[in-house]
Amino acid sequence: MTATQSERVTAAVMIIGDEILSGRTQDTNLSAIAKYLATYGVDLCEARVVPDVEQEIIDAVNALRTKYDYVITTGGIGPTHDDITADSIAKAFGVTAPEHPEIMAMLRERWGEPNAARRRMAHVPEGGSLVKNPVQGPPGFQKENVFVLAGVPAIMRGMLEDVGPRLRTGAVVLSKTVRVTGTGEGVIAAPLEAVAKAHPDMSLGSYPFFSPPDVYGANLVLRGRDAAELEVAVNELMAALEEAEANNIELVASPA
Amino acid sequence: MTATQSERVTAAVMIIGDEILSGRTQDTNLSAIAKYLATYGVDLCEARVVPDVEQEIIDAVNALRTKYDYVITTGGIGPTHDDITADSIAKAFGVTAPEHPEIMAMLRERWGEPNAARRRMAHVPEGGSLVKNPVQGPPGFQKENVFVLAGVPAIMRGMLEDVGPRLRTGAVVLSKTVRVTGTGEGVIAAPLEAVAKAHPDMSLGSYPFFSPPDVYGANLVLRGRDAAELEVAVNELMAALEEAEANNIELVASPA
Repeated sequence: MTATQSERVTAAVMIIGDEILSGRTQDTNLSAIAKYLATYGVDLCEARVVPDVEQEIIDAVNALRTKYDYVITTGGIGPTHDDITADSIAKAFGVTAPEHPEIMAMLRERWGEPNAARRRMAHVPEGGSLVKNPVQGPPGFQKENVFVLAGVPAIMRGMLEDVGPRLRTGAVVLSKTVRVTGTGEGVIAAPLEAVAKAHPDMSLGSYPFFSPPDVYGANLVLRGRDAAELEVAVNELMAALEEAEANNIELVASPA
Repeated sequence: MTATQSERVTAAVMIIGDEILSGRTQDTNLSAIAKYLATYGVDLCEARVVPDVEQEIIDAVNALRTKYDYVITTGGIGPTHDDITADSIAKAFGVTAPEHPEIMAMLRERWGEPNAARRRMAHVPEGGSLVKNPVQGPPGFQKENVFVLAGVPAIMRGMLEDVGPRLRTGAVVLSKTVRVTGTGEGVIAAPLEAVAKAHPDMSLGSYPFFSPPDVYGANLVLRGRDAAELEVAVNELMAALEEAEANNIELVASPA
């Protein structure tokens, strides 16, 4: 299904894990999911990082699943005592999380009769469907509009491939980046705002960079769903920057 | 001020910016802040990433500032039209954000009479105090228990140095990491849970790693505020892992 041009499809990400909040682990899943969703025209609107605490997971997923079209969670689906995501998501939906027969079969094939710890990995909320894990270990799952994926980045990215085809897709957002080097945002702001006001359906952002001692400037990112309008806005912005006497204005390859 | 041993000091981080949610920019501020707060014994309990949308910023900061002792925000304090953090935080507190005379003086010294865009950087909510910027550009600010910092990492980290001394501090959390390589979490889970249950004041987490095709294992992180108890728990865990016939058990240098 494709949403109509004007209808936004929205999503939130929920990163579950004490290790992100302690600073021990640098999260990279958020940006990977953001870029993946963008290829389906789905807008990532919010992200939350929550600890391995049942009530925090329940409260966050209930807030997000009612506000956005989709929620993608990462982390907490392994066999150890701090892996409480499946049971917490089940509680958020008011259902139980019994052992899923397909996962139990996989575990038995791999381990013989699995021990209590490994059986935890078979917990799937009632009514949930499995999300394939093409990398290593048991699958994730989808419960209504919530997708529950692994936290290990290589495994998470593998699971993501089974998420996209299930999404209602939107019009893909196109973007162009104009870089200005050696000019501060104080000079850039007025031309940028003028172009932003002329194109209310687009989003224009200024992302300053600064490398001590003296390299500075900003990446001006123009984003919109209409290729022709994007082209026009880029040209207007470059002309306006030139008129404002900004230095070193260049159109650069846009990563996202 | 130091909190008593049993009294946790809590904080949340709020990352403001469309560029994080589009996947364009990989956030690194969250882990930098987490590590910084840890040195003051302050527990980072939650993080949210919100877009450059006024109502979203207001709702998030109001939810977080009432739930935690401190909130630290990053991003959205520059001069461009999408820099709406100061005005949004003011609205969240129900006050205005007039031009702060000290920042106006800095801007005049740097630019002569600043243009309208640069004057936006002088907006500080009524009753707020400035947070020093030792790197480049205007300062951040503190309004009650909310600290508003820049988004550019080098500048954010500089500003952070003026945050710590203002915090009520807690007992610092100590941690040790036991690494097990070539053994899955299914074997680790039972010994880990037994030690976790024996030390309810500590937090024990298992963070699996997997590098295709065949390097796998887990970092088992033990965290607690009592050095002697931490030592005991580490020894108990290593003995229990050995008894469970886990491979390659080693105590490794703990990053956080």
